[in-house]
Amino acid sequence: MYPVDFGLLSPAWASTPVASTASDAAFAQGMLDVEAAWVKVQAQAGLCSVADADAVAAIARVELYDLAALAQKGPDGANALIPLLSMMRAKLVESDAPGTAALALHRGATSQDIIDSALMLVASRSITLLRGDLVSAGASLSRLSNEHGSTVCVARSLTQHALPTLFGLRVANWLAGITAAGRALDAANAALPVQWGGAAGTLASLHQRLGATHPYKSNHRLAEHAEELTAGLAAELGLLAPIAPWHTMRAPILALGSALASVNAATGTFAADVLTASRPEIGELSEPHEAGKGGSSAMPQKRNPVHSVLLRNAALAAPGHLATLYNAAGTAVDERPDGGWHAEWSALRELIRLAGAAGHHGRILAAGLNVFPEAMARNLALSGDLLVSERILAVASPLVAGGKAKVDELVAESVRTGTPLRTLLQGELPSDMDNQLFLDDLLDPSGYLGSATEFITRIRKDFNDWKVA
Amino acid sequence: MYPVDFGLLSPAWASTPVASTASDAAFAQGMLDVEAAWVKVQAQAGLCSVADADAVAAIARVELYDLAALAQKGPDGANALIPLLSMMRAKLVESDAPGTAALALHRGATSQDIIDSALMLVASRSITLLRGDLVSAGASLSRLSNEHGSTVCVARSLTQHALPTLFGLRVANWLAGITAAGRALDAANAALPVQWGGAAGTLASLHQRLGATHPYKSNHRLAEHAEELTAGLAAELGLLAPIAPWHTMRAPILALGSALASVNAATGTFAADVLTASRPEIGELSEPHEAGKGGSSAMPQKRNPVHSVLLRNAALAAPGHLATLYNAAGTAVDERPDGGWHAEWSALRELIRLAGAAGHHGRILAAGLNVFPEAMARNLALSGDLLVSERILAVASPLVAGGKAKVDELVAESVRTGTPLRTLLQGELPSDMDNQLFLDDLLDPSGYLGSATEFITRIRKDFNDWKVA
Amino acid sequence: MYPVDFGLLSPAWASTPVASTASDAAFAQGMLDVEAAWVKVQAQAGLCSVADADAVAAIARVELYDLAALAQKGPDGANALIPLLSMMRAKLVESDAPGTAALALHRGATSQDIIDSALMLVASRSITLLRGDLVSAGASLSRLSNEHGSTVCVARSLTQHALPTLFGLRVANWLAGITAAGRALDAANAALPVQWGGAAGTLASLHQRLGATHPYKSNHRLAEHAEELTAGLAAELGLLAPIAPWHTMRAPILALGSALASVNAATGTFAADVLTASRPEIGELSEPHEAGKGGSSAMPQKRNPVHSVLLRNAALAAPGHLATLYNAAGTAVDERPDGGWHAEWSALRELIRLAGAAGHHGRILAAGLNVFPEAMARNLALSGDLLVSERILAVASPLVAGGKAKVDELVAESVRTGTPLRTLLQGELPSDMDNQLFLDDLLDPSGYLGSATEFITRIRKDFNDWKVA
Amino acid sequence: MYPVDFGLLSPAWASTPVASTASDAAFAQGMLDVEAAWVKVQAQAGLCSVADADAVAAIARVELYDLAALAQKGPDGANALIPLLSMMRAKLVESDAPGTAALALHRGATSQDIIDSALMLVASRSITLLRGDLVSAGASLSRLSNEHGSTVCVARSLTQHALPTLFGLRVANWLAGITAAGRALDAANAALPVQWGGAAGTLASLHQRLGATHPYKSNHRLAEHAEELTAGLAAELGLLAPIAPWHTMRAPILALGSALASVNAATGTFAADVLTASRPEIGELSEPHEAGKGGSSAMPQKRNPVHSVLLRNAALAAPGHLATLYNAAGTAVDERPDGGWHAEWSALRELIRLAGAAGHHGRILAAGLNVFPEAMARNLALSGDLLVSERILAVASPLVAGGKAKVDELVAESVRTGTPLRTLLQGELPSDMDNQLFLDDLLDPSGYLGSATEFITRIRKDFNDWKVA
Repeated sequence: MYPVDFGLLSPAWASTPVASTASDAAFAQGMLDVEAAWVKVQAQAGLCSVADADAVAAIARVELYDLAALAQKGPDGANALIPLLSMMRAKLVESDAPGTAALALHRGATSQDIIDSALMLVASRSITLLRGDLVSAGASLSRLSNEHGSTVCVARSLTQHALPTLFGLRVANWLAGITAAGRALDAANAALPVQWGGAAGTLASLHQRLGATHPYKSNHRLAEHAEELTAGLAAELGLLAPIAPWHTMRAPILALGSALASVNAATGTFAADVLTASRPEIGELSEPHEAGKGGSSAMPQKRNPVHSVLLRNAALAAPGHLATLYNAAGTAVDERPDGGWHAEWSALRELIRLAGAAGHHGRILAAGLNVFPEAMARNLALSGDLLVSERILAVASPLVAGGKAKVDELVAESVRTGTPLRTLLQGELPSDMDNQLFLDDLLDPSGYLGSATEFITRIRKDFNDWKVA
Repeated sequence: MYPVDFGLLSPAWASTPVASTASDAAFAQGMLDVEAAWVKVQAQAGLCSVADADAVAAIARVELYDLAALAQKGPDGANALIPLLSMMRAKLVESDAPGTAALALHRGATSQDIIDSALMLVASRSITLLRGDLVSAGASLSRLSNEHGSTVCVARSLTQHALPTLFGLRVANWLAGITAAGRALDAANAALPVQWGGAAGTLASLHQRLGATHPYKSNHRLAEHAEELTAGLAAELGLLAPIAPWHTMRAPILALGSALASVNAATGTFAADVLTASRPEIGELSEPHEAGKGGSSAMPQKRNPVHSVLLRNAALAAPGHLATLYNAAGTAVDERPDGGWHAEWSALRELIRLAGAAGHHGRILAAGLNVFPEAMARNLALSGDLLVSERILAVASPLVAGGKAKVDELVAESVRTGTPLRTLLQGELPSDMDNQLFLDDLLDPSGYLGSATEFITRIRKDFNDWKVA
Repeated sequence: MYPVDFGLLSPAWASTPVASTASDAAFAQGMLDVEAAWVKVQAQAGLCSVADADAVAAIARVELYDLAALAQKGPDGANALIPLLSMMRAKLVESDAPGTAALALHRGATSQDIIDSALMLVASRSITLLRGDLVSAGASLSRLSNEHGSTVCVARSLTQHALPTLFGLRVANWLAGITAAGRALDAANAALPVQWGGAAGTLASLHQRLGATHPYKSNHRLAEHAEELTAGLAAELGLLAPIAPWHTMRAPILALGSALASVNAATGTFAADVLTASRPEIGELSEPHEAGKGGSSAMPQKRNPVHSVLLRNAALAAPGHLATLYNAAGTAVDERPDGGWHAEWSALRELIRLAGAAGHHGRILAAGLNVFPEAMARNLALSGDLLVSERILAVASPLVAGGKAKVDELVAESVRTGTPLRTLLQGELPSDMDNQLFLDDLLDPSGYLGSATEFITRIRKDFNDWKVA
Repeated sequence: MYPVDFGLLSPAWASTPVASTASDAAFAQGMLDVEAAWVKVQAQAGLCSVADADAVAAIARVELYDLAALAQKGPDGANALIPLLSMMRAKLVESDAPGTAALALHRGATSQDIIDSALMLVASRSITLLRGDLVSAGASLSRLSNEHGSTVCVARSLTQHALPTLFGLRVANWLAGITAAGRALDAANAALPVQWGGAAGTLASLHQRLGATHPYKSNHRLAEHAEELTAGLAAELGLLAPIAPWHTMRAPILALGSALASVNAATGTFAADVLTASRPEIGELSEPHEAGKGGSSAMPQKRNPVHSVLLRNAALAAPGHLATLYNAAGTAVDERPDGGWHAEWSALRELIRLAGAAGHHGRILAAGLNVFPEAMARNLALSGDLLVSERILAVASPLVAGGKAKVDELVAESVRTGTPLRTLLQGELPSDMDNQLFLDDLLDPSGYLGSATEFITRIRKDFNDWKVA
């Protein structure tokens, strides 16, 4: 039996929709779709018969093919299209297709045309799902950031308590990441080009065929005709017609890969914050509890934050694949690269799947995140008055004899001895101030939040603008 | 003496403009510029005096600072801004600045605001140069592709001869890469945001200050005021005002890094083709000869293709740095990351320099590339009639008794025995055809170029559209 | 139907033995093997019955399990072992195993113990094959370098002709790469450790069990007992017993990954040279011709160097996976990492497969490489006398009036005008020398090969030393 | 003024010893050392005079050279050695050296011989320091793990509380990482080879010179002589004499780079644990407090864990550089690569510096880490009896009516309601057991530590074995 993989070593995307939309079968179907669309376009242009197109369409169903056998033969020509084409031709014969169907099949094309276009189809179809997940995750985060628009918590920098912030703003920052990645993804998705150039990227063979039908057309007119056919193919497949073939000009792959990886970066940050906040000692967040998920093989009481773990897994894995795409692109040579092109395929597919996993788990995590404001309050209290020392310094320095140097000294004393800053400050303030009220106000974390609310509003609006775009 | 680096191990960018525009001094000047601009904006808003702003501007010149001492102290706080600020404050005292200048300096800011914004300035200034180089390189390539709009050469795939093409199309493909990278760069450059959020990304400290001046303003109005100030700062620096602070939402860094790396991918392909074509056995291209360049330490006759070598060097080095940016972004945590942010700096700077190097050497290479059409013709002839076997198969199969199978056999015989296909075909063609003229036409490589000319035209036009954008 | 992958996008390893030895099934069998071995070791130690061990062994066959269902459940606990264990327990019940078998199964273990150990088994089993391929490839190269121990060809640096060398030495350099990678692989393979630590890496649960049987043993004696059991397990699996569990100390993974990637680097260089030399214009080498391989979908005459292309594909893909392993290791935290561990699995498996592919294709390529010494001679002649200009400079400078400066001038003239250096030199040499014989000797490339022969001998000997190690 | 870098963007290594030992000046001195050593070896062999060697030694001091000018000229020949050689020759003339000194200088060498060997010297010298730091860090960790050989704390997996462990074991795991990385480093360091092959890796030019002195020696004897000279050079430089030149066989670079990156992986894990434990809510550890370090530009009370942040920075940055080395090696071609070699330099140097930074900050962190056992106890108590639920299940299931299912139910109830497991268990245990004593024993975390103590002992012993090796 030919060895197959199920995703046992890739729990991030196993069992998510991209396991299917970016599977080997999906890629093979993509190749079949491109071949069938091309014959259909030819039929529409009168280059072959509708019967030819129907015959090819009839065999362009992945379930008719033995993918294991295909994989087995892939290395013979260093790609899977070559043996697939043989199989398709055999199927045409078996299915009593008109002999002309086989002539129209793959006419003027090269394996890179089919493979690159098929990968664009796989990307496009997976991104449709992914965008839905990102919008859904974003909507949950937007709602959550609004709900926690006045939940004060501690802002941390370099792991340490810094100042007060709103939990809603932390959530909004996750949302901002998703919106930015979503925009990058939309841009890449809208620009996914069909690949169509023939063996040397000149469409020479197609010209030959067109010239046979239209012997009096100038080369320029034939080129216009070829361009129309390429545009027709792109439209049929829902892809963009590029300015020219891009066999070795891999910018479309780089833009796509970068956008996909940026999705993982965005959900990686989300996960990093959830993982931190769901540590028992911090306890500000917990993952949604689903029956049968997050269990441990040894410890019955343990609930693992599996969605966050898988999001972090994906965030750590994506950059290596992206680097491979840039390496391959930067070493591309001649009219078709000598290995770099081949190295792109699995890297790109894995990026599609990891981004898909990010959307899937990000959506679930965002929808079901449990928030514990009381823990946030408890953690905030840990730093006491010191949390607003920045403010104290600014406000109290002019009021205290000794100025900033004295206040610095009081802060240091508070850190050293644990005496609350309030206590230390009280003795130093002018006697004619109503110290308690003044200090209540000065030391209240919820009074030192700056533009946090407005930032939440703006980020939520930006998400809404993107969502409907 | 503090150890300094000159670029001895980075010949790709050493001696090019980015050695300066992205130097430590340029970064330090960037930090000084941000601090000075902020005081200037405050003065304009009446938050400090013009004299304060002038005093800070006067000390915001990098030549006043001992950068070695700064580097020495950098690790104390894990960044260079903290010690720079101390030095600036000391300079203010030395320069008899008004005491209020020191209060306005860095008011409400955090070190990440200054460092991120300074890196954006370094990027922006370097990209201005880089765009110029890319436009210049593109213009040279556009001209070259036009000049060689009818120079037939062999198209190669997987290193082997495939079909005829136009050398002008190969050049146009390099140009397409540069145009695409240039577009990505423009998009990233237009979106370079200022960073402005204060210690927790809330602008709390700035609010505090604004509230002191405007005690009756609502928090919402203070936020609007803060937003205006941020917009003012962005305008002053020529950067974009972001929707919100992006301390841990690193999408801007990812978009910038990806665009920079795509420049290296584009020139990497250009270099790969030049390196191949300038091999003595191929001899289709050679690098521009400049006195004193390309020499060997041991072999006086040798001329090394140094620009291409350095472009390839840069293309191989960039992906690793890009991966670091995505790693850092995907592991960012809290309101300021605990090491990931710090890992970005040198990776981003190196990407700026490698892209700058790509622009610089790409421009020189494109401008001075020597083209040898006779070598192209000679190499084309190597494959003889077999080069158009694809066409022969299409055209001759219906004419020959035995059809495609027979023609396949003739091709195989020609490969095996070296007998020209023309000879083998002659005997098989119908006797009533004027074989010589028919075969002349059939086997002429320049008659089998498809849309090559139109692709050149379209790519050149696309470059022109971008260039003036 | 659950989506499965066949390797359509990974032609480098599809259809090679590592497609199987590192498949999901092989990994699942590895997990089953570890679980079964552990119960066997317990039985030998009297901690359970032989019947228990037999019952577990009977169900530890991968063909009994639905791997698609397993993959589907993998994400629930972020790994595949947890659902596998449930399935195993169900199988025990179904098979009427003694109830004690289920108790012995996985006793004291944690999922990381099983997964890490299973991956070590997969690595070990794949490396056994890989080593065989490397030895075979090396033997072919050793023979080839010997056969071409006097075949002079041109040495190239930075793509340009440098000096003469022996083709046998170029081959020997490939061999040296394989030997070095093989040594690294042997070292890593010999150090593959079993993972055995229980949920917290302390073996607490195992101690508990041992303490129940041996209530009077001191903790220290129990630890010795546990150590013996771990050693027994390691021996049973053919792995090393580590000093301690390595749940977050990932040095074994890094050493293994680096060794695997170094195999791809070695064959990448081999492939790069073959790809260059098999360009039609160079023509010094060609890949072995195998029926049905290397064909093009469009161009019947074309023979693609598929083995080299796939080796280069693998060399370009491996570094990204290696970087992922180092990233994961460097961000490992706590007693089990929160995503980094999970990111290792597919990266490590892909490195195993890419190295396996390197061995497989490297072996075939080395065994069947076609060498064309006449092309080497022809290319050598391209540079004419200039190829030994280094030597001419050394030898002729003292003999010519004007010394080195004059000879430099002659070299430059020869480069410029194409006049053979011999002609230019003749007029400058002292008249009492028998110029023709002297020049014949001076300009003969085969007389300027230095230690090339000895380097071949030494590299071949080093390979032989490794081979039998 | 030529732009120089001080390390402003690399706080990890700025101000540490590797800033100097791997500086451009150190590299330039390395090149000078190799050139000088080679003339010395020639003098010892009678190939030049002692006066020649003395003259070259006199000018082989980096302070005599303008490194900015050198960097400026580096790109001309794509490396810094070519212009340095010109400068050296000029210095010889200026210094009235014997004319023969210039002839002996660089005799038979190529720029790659000097650059590769110089980088090996830079590596070797930096590693000497690094090893010292690792031994020192290891000694501190060994002592610390011993001091905390009975400090119970919570073991965490996937961020959640798992079981009790010893803090000493966590420390020992950091130590194990350092020991493993140290061993890898020792192996790489012991194998650092001199590069010596001449322009084509054949030593042809050296043979020419030796043949002039020994006209009757066979080529084989000349090769032996050349080998002796290479061995002499290696000995003079403290490097290994390789089997053959390794101009394109980059295994030594890969082994070195991997070892260096593994140091960063080890300290990355150390830092990740310290960063987690020094979060205020966890509070189990804090960084050593040093005056002037760890301050914030905005928040006076804040103490940033700067050493850990910089270690994490280094751990995140290293993998990208390592990937570049493998990319470069795997695309190496011909007798000297066309850009890959050049891409290695700065990647390798950065890896040296990042590993040096890891040693430096790791040493300080290990020496001064503050440990708070009371916080560990407090955090342990957070999970209460549930922390040993694994044990409870094993021990209590046979004693309770309802067995494992009942105990599972009690655990679930405890998780749900917060009722201590002890309370729930009491009612279920057989009445004839002295429940309190039994439960005290069962639920005591310090009684459920397995082999933790022995693992500490074994890891400490392994470190000691390495340390003195």
